[in-house]
Amino acid sequence: MGDWIDAVAWNSDGLVPAVAQDAASGEVLMLAWMNREALERTVASGEAHYWSRSRKALWKKGETSGHVLRVKEVRMDCDADAIVLSVESTKGIACHTGRRRCFFRRLEARGARREWVETDPVLADPGSFRDG
Amino acid sequence: MGDWIDAVAWNSDGLVPAVAQDAASGEVLMLAWMNREALERTVASGEAHYWSRSRKALWKKGETSGHVLRVKEVRMDCDADAIVLSVESTKGIACHTGRRRCFFRRLEARGARREWVETDPVLADPGSFRDG
Repeated sequence: MGDWIDAVAWNSDGLVPAVAQDAASGEVLMLAWMNREALERTVASGEAHYWSRSRKALWKKGETSGHVLRVKEVRMDCDADAIVLSVESTKGIACHTGRRRCFFRRLEARGARREWVETDPVLADPGSFRDG
Repeated sequence: MGDWIDAVAWNSDGLVPAVAQDAASGEVLMLAWMNREALERTVASGEAHYWSRSRKALWKKGETSGHVLRVKEVRMDCDADAIVLSVESTKGIACHTGRRRCFFRRLEARGARREWVETDPVLADPGSFRDG
């Protein structure tokens, strides 16, 4: 089946979505995108790397913030078009807003309406870093 | 902030990636895509609906297999461009291959090489359904 990385079904932009899940708590921390180089570097270094679609650049998670994600396990799905990383969130902050995880909003019913409610506290000043 | 669904940052195809996580075990079961209607139906019905990019059609997870995902919680991330569903996998099978989860392949080192290794057993005959 060739090299392991050739098994990934990259999308038309050469990217694959990668979910980072906290290895200890099981919480889904973030979803970001990887190109081939980001996944290769993630596996080689044991630290999560991504492709920024807005900045069109490779980035290492935590390169400015220090909020590195240490990778324990890499999984791929049945269609080979999604990745799950089991990670250790070294500083306990995975979101660029200074929260534990990016998924800090929960949909809640308020009478007949529904709204997104923030459930997680800000743990660090988000002004001090820009890459989460 | 308008209606809750308008807060979602749909991509250029009108889609958002949605991760389904088992509410009991914490396992990431699958990643699939939703359009606006799929998310509305998911929230209204309490059962996961998706948009099939290959079939270009709305589908309810389990509509032919019975492997319905009952939704306990819906979360959105900081950039509003990813969703996490906390779900009950009613039949314990979320993958169209008949496995518990779609992420049944783990990257493992074999000497100097790496390869994807299947870690999860097939629990149901995948010939009996096509929608997982």
